[in-house]
Amino acid sequence: MRRFILSVGACLMVIVWMAQGADLMPAAGGGTGDSSAPVDGFSPDSARVERDWEGKFRALPSPANMRIYMQRISARPHHVGTEYDRLNAEWILSQFREWGWDAHIEDFDVLFPTPKERAVELVSPTHFKATLEEPTVKDDPTSDQHAEQLPSYNAYSIDGDVTASLVYVNYGIPEDYEQLDRLGISVKGAIVIARYGMSWRGIKPKVAAERGAVGCIIYSDPHEDGYFRGDVFPTGPWRPMEGVQRGSVMDMVLYPGDPLTPGVGATQDAKRLPLAEAKTLTKIPVLPISYGDAQPLLAALRGPVAPEGWRGSLALTYHIGPGPAQVHLKVKSNWDTKTLHDVIAKIPGADSPEQWILRGNHEDAWVNGAEDPVSALVDEMEEARSMGELLKQGWKPRRTIVYCVWDGEEEGLLGSTEWGEEHADELRRHAAVYINTDANGRGYLSAGGSHTLEKFMNGVERDIEDPETKLSVWKRSQLRLIANATPEERQEARTRPDMRLSALGSGSDYTVFVDHLGVASLNLGFEGEDGGGIYHSIYDDFYWYTHFGDPDFSYGRALAQTAGTAVLRLADADLLPFEFTDFADTIHTYDEQLKKLLKDKQETARERNIELDEGVFTAAVDPKETHVPPEREDPPPYLNFAPLDNALDALTRSATQYQKALAKAEGNGGVGLARASLQQVNQTLIESERRLTRPEGLPGRPWFQHQIYAPGFYTGYDVKTLPAVREAMEQKKWKEADAALVEVGKVLDAESALILRAYQELENATK
Amino acid sequence: MRRFILSVGACLMVIVWMAQGADLMPAAGGGTGDSSAPVDGFSPDSARVERDWEGKFRALPSPANMRIYMQRISARPHHVGTEYDRLNAEWILSQFREWGWDAHIEDFDVLFPTPKERAVELVSPTHFKATLEEPTVKDDPTSDQHAEQLPSYNAYSIDGDVTASLVYVNYGIPEDYEQLDRLGISVKGAIVIARYGMSWRGIKPKVAAERGAVGCIIYSDPHEDGYFRGDVFPTGPWRPMEGVQRGSVMDMVLYPGDPLTPGVGATQDAKRLPLAEAKTLTKIPVLPISYGDAQPLLAALRGPVAPEGWRGSLALTYHIGPGPAQVHLKVKSNWDTKTLHDVIAKIPGADSPEQWILRGNHEDAWVNGAEDPVSALVDEMEEARSMGELLKQGWKPRRTIVYCVWDGEEEGLLGSTEWGEEHADELRRHAAVYINTDANGRGYLSAGGSHTLEKFMNGVERDIEDPETKLSVWKRSQLRLIANATPEERQEARTRPDMRLSALGSGSDYTVFVDHLGVASLNLGFEGEDGGGIYHSIYDDFYWYTHFGDPDFSYGRALAQTAGTAVLRLADADLLPFEFTDFADTIHTYDEQLKKLLKDKQETARERNIELDEGVFTAAVDPKETHVPPEREDPPPYLNFAPLDNALDALTRSATQYQKALAKAEGNGGVGLARASLQQVNQTLIESERRLTRPEGLPGRPWFQHQIYAPGFYTGYDVKTLPAVREAMEQKKWKEADAALVEVGKVLDAESALILRAYQELENATK
Repeated sequence: MRRFILSVGACLMVIVWMAQGADLMPAAGGGTGDSSAPVDGFSPDSARVERDWEGKFRALPSPANMRIYMQRISARPHHVGTEYDRLNAEWILSQFREWGWDAHIEDFDVLFPTPKERAVELVSPTHFKATLEEPTVKDDPTSDQHAEQLPSYNAYSIDGDVTASLVYVNYGIPEDYEQLDRLGISVKGAIVIARYGMSWRGIKPKVAAERGAVGCIIYSDPHEDGYFRGDVFPTGPWRPMEGVQRGSVMDMVLYPGDPLTPGVGATQDAKRLPLAEAKTLTKIPVLPISYGDAQPLLAALRGPVAPEGWRGSLALTYHIGPGPAQVHLKVKSNWDTKTLHDVIAKIPGADSPEQWILRGNHEDAWVNGAEDPVSALVDEMEEARSMGELLKQGWKPRRTIVYCVWDGEEEGLLGSTEWGEEHADELRRHAAVYINTDANGRGYLSAGGSHTLEKFMNGVERDIEDPETKLSVWKRSQLRLIANATPEERQEARTRPDMRLSALGSGSDYTVFVDHLGVASLNLGFEGEDGGGIYHSIYDDFYWYTHFGDPDFSYGRALAQTAGTAVLRLADADLLPFEFTDFADTIHTYDEQLKKLLKDKQETARERNIELDEGVFTAAVDPKETHVPPEREDPPPYLNFAPLDNALDALTRSATQYQKALAKAEGNGGVGLARASLQQVNQTLIESERRLTRPEGLPGRPWFQHQIYAPGFYTGYDVKTLPAVREAMEQKKWKEADAALVEVGKVLDAESALILRAYQELENATK
Repeated sequence: MRRFILSVGACLMVIVWMAQGADLMPAAGGGTGDSSAPVDGFSPDSARVERDWEGKFRALPSPANMRIYMQRISARPHHVGTEYDRLNAEWILSQFREWGWDAHIEDFDVLFPTPKERAVELVSPTHFKATLEEPTVKDDPTSDQHAEQLPSYNAYSIDGDVTASLVYVNYGIPEDYEQLDRLGISVKGAIVIARYGMSWRGIKPKVAAERGAVGCIIYSDPHEDGYFRGDVFPTGPWRPMEGVQRGSVMDMVLYPGDPLTPGVGATQDAKRLPLAEAKTLTKIPVLPISYGDAQPLLAALRGPVAPEGWRGSLALTYHIGPGPAQVHLKVKSNWDTKTLHDVIAKIPGADSPEQWILRGNHEDAWVNGAEDPVSALVDEMEEARSMGELLKQGWKPRRTIVYCVWDGEEEGLLGSTEWGEEHADELRRHAAVYINTDANGRGYLSAGGSHTLEKFMNGVERDIEDPETKLSVWKRSQLRLIANATPEERQEARTRPDMRLSALGSGSDYTVFVDHLGVASLNLGFEGEDGGGIYHSIYDDFYWYTHFGDPDFSYGRALAQTAGTAVLRLADADLLPFEFTDFADTIHTYDEQLKKLLKDKQETARERNIELDEGVFTAAVDPKETHVPPEREDPPPYLNFAPLDNALDALTRSATQYQKALAKAEGNGGVGLARASLQQVNQTLIESERRLTRPEGLPGRPWFQHQIYAPGFYTGYDVKTLPAVREAMEQKKWKEADAALVEVGKVLDAESALILRAYQELENATK
């Protein structure tokens, strides 16, 4: 479902993560880098061999092939349970086999509601019936496949049939409801209409229900996703008036995957919850609509004019309501079980087959899905074909490579989650790294992932050539970072050896790996230059992608080179290139953020109480309008950060120890890196991410076991780092925050102990 | 023409100037304050008498009268040269006389172009002819007076008839053209279309012409001035689709007033420039249009999508062009001379008739002008009526009071400027303070003016009751300041005894007084709660104002109380309440701003050059679009701030000396403030503002003689403080900036010398 990049403010908030250096590509074409340069984790001899294989590899991915694959896979709608979804899986399976992979399909049976009845109607003061239809666009040949298209809806909305006053709630995030409180407006018993953006969509009905709303409509405002951004389809890439964003509203921050089989694989005979006990369905009915359908509803609202930051780009005055608009919302689904088909393909490792490097991208789409997910799936396929070529030329990866093509991602990461849960034990034993992609376009590499892989990923990025500028992908990202940075950020961008890797939230198939199983993960994709207004609509198709996405697939080739190089390098390395000083440095910044968060909350509460005493909230408002002063609250208490601070000091020390041992091993002509003796340290390194989990998981959501990263309970896709502490603070649970500081300290202490063990093992192995 | 409050960003940028204290109104109603509290500049005995008169005064202004005056004055269009304009002047004259004032009318003959032919047409790729009409609105009885309404146009546009490619230039300010340079777009030979806002309108054709454009269209975007802000007229107060903002585009920052008689009064026999030599007409033709008329023009543009900050709230994708839209623009005016009628009314001073306190508001309007200017004119009239009542009760102001009702303000401050120029010598001798108003609404007091009057004005504000909250106007403004402040600003708002008085730019009739003659001035008005979308349109009328402005005239009463109290207090004071420590403190902040401006410009230039070396400007852009790197420029040199710093030190010392003498005089039971002996020090104080001028004026614009305040050469209404230095720096004239620092230092040294003289005179008079 690929995180949708939302622009709020001055420019497209392209998410790029970078750092410093001056390495331009040594030669144009191929992007192979300096063949004699060292490679982290390789002895000089094996580095030379590796660079040779990587150079051969990067010459292989073919834009022409990608185009052919895309045209075929996106030729018809292929959501879970359709015939074309199955045919795609079977064809991809046959391709992998043809390329020399040991491949099979694994099926899971999952709950997948599809629309039976949908209605959004303005019933008063005037009447208007929303079309809920995306029309055929002339010139776009697949847009007329209406019989096979999944209608626009939000999957896992409960059934409902409600009529109530309408209230506009902006993005429908918690802060918006705080603003409504200040305006004296309640959504109790009302249907809310929220615009897409600023949170994962599933958060909107969840918060609305918590506040007492009885229904939720989500629409795409042209400000974020329409003509405000640029010319609309088919003139340009942006969302047309009738375009609708489908999407899941399953409460995935509780647990993703099949709602009926939390924590276990949804095999045919798995034990299932009754539907009524599934906790991840919404509490109120939800439907998404286009801005064409939203306009009459919003225009029928009165009540206060919405605050300036709430106003979108429709040609109307945004009012909040409630009413006088009365709206009828009806959602009824077929609550069927469907079978999904994951394609799993392997190249067994020649030396350490028990260490797995995993790579995945989903195949299922909401409709035709040329961009999401096929644009990156075809890159993954070209990686697989190219590795097949290398095998024929004699390449033998040290470790086992597992390529996965997931089904059912859009509905709630179904395919990856069920497979991960089903294979949890072996994955916990064997999985070294999981590399995910989900969609691709022109622009800058967006790289997120486990901070222990930061230095490694920076190394890969330095070896990939940007197709447009012929700079290394790393260099272009760094210059972009400098261009958009504050002076302080610029300083870091110019001087820190590695660009920071952003922490992973959720929204794609890495979730089960990193958050549930503790497998170090990466998520990669190019973006920032391709306008996107077809996300989860029928217009996300071959016509759109080949006109507005990456028409010549040059960035498709670059992504295949990037992800493939990462896989090769991880699969071939003498010593797995985990690194802990960057990791410790970044966790330190999270610690600082938490301290600042507490200080800000204390100052805000103190200031608010002073202003309540002064009468600011009654004097500085228009008495003709309703304004409710905020509640008086005691400032938050001081918290004990010592357990975290001490653990971080220990982490930095152990990371430095390991780094010294590594430098020694590599420094001495790299002779220390004799493969045979590294088996034990590699196995220890694989476990480094596992140490960051707790079997109890996070408070209130045991499925999420990782203690450094989690999708926010009230943000959805967006990450919360050190989540147990941060979310307790955000939710004003101060005792829980203090307790979580102790627990996170223990987790980091365990990590330090593991790193020291790895240091000892490396010292012993290489001396 | 009242400065139009433009909202850009999160909220209505209400311009309020405030400070600290805790004085609530001691009693509701009347707003008379504590009758035994001291009053700056008064001995205890005269303070008691003064408080008594002020209390009586503030009970007199009548909302009912204001309503009657407004209905009469705004009943028909009354721009310069109309019969109704003359009738209004004559009726106001008769009223003043009835109230016991010595009143007369002074006429001036001024150049005033009115429309003969107007056309804006899209001629290609499709055809559209702009209506250029504001239709009658049912329910609004004066909106149908089309025969008398001045058509929508920009006065002092030169005649022209051009057809050219259209380019959208955002607000049309210099920064926008720098952005166009970066996008590789020139306006040479093109017609530009700019939206209203971010500068005085006359700046837009001026900068466009400098850049080679051949025509300029200005439109009201609904983002700043239409449905984005709130419901449009007649449902709400905001600008409807067909509403047009008329307005002058005379180059008033060169000199305001009659273009043919710069520097001298436009009397019948004044020497006049030939029209061709008038320097303040535009260089290219200009017309204003509504957003209804702008939509088809903007929709016909292609070329790059406008940067995000350039996009307004029309339901279209904003492109820049140039073209393919070809536009025909035609402007032809009747270049007539019209007679304007200033009403001048006096109450002679009983003791110091040679010291004048002036008060003014204009009467002329673009059309009916209920808000601009009648809403504040009726307050001025009620002040005059009330003072007439006081005279009957035996009040005898110490100083001469001069009430002025200006004509021809809208076209270019004609009435006030010509009168000020004609009477320059006597004004330089006699004028102590000029107090201006221009329009009024509900909300917060906006007070700007000479910093030497800051403490005085704070004192007045503490004695006026806010009609809505019953707090003092001062207190409400302070709480508003706290509500909107940064933490640093909050600290100042809570602890600085006086709220800062904002510096005056231009845009109303105080200009000739403060900027040309060096008369300390104030500009007052309430605003911030009344939405305004009828500025300079036919809908600015009695119907609008009594529905959306200040329907019960309670803020009309408050403004009459505020301005009238200020006049009474200045006219009656034993010692004129000029004060210099606040003044010195504020000039210090300007000095700091200039140093920061230089540092920022140095850092920006250095950083830009580094980024040019790094290749940021070519790497961090989409190569499918045109992006031109900025020019390499040497960083600005360091400047010699010592002359200014030394002068400021001396200023602070002399201000403190004077303050000590004043405290001594007031402290000793105030016995020192014996009126008879203060004649000389009062005369010295009157000259304190004159010392801040130089007869040479500012570089390139000798009419503007004040060295602390001036309207910006490229901003228009917006003030530039220490303008000779600041504008030289902004225009990268570093030598001129260094020279200006010396000159400003000399001006401040002369001011310090005058303050020391006043100190000596006060010491001598009160010991």
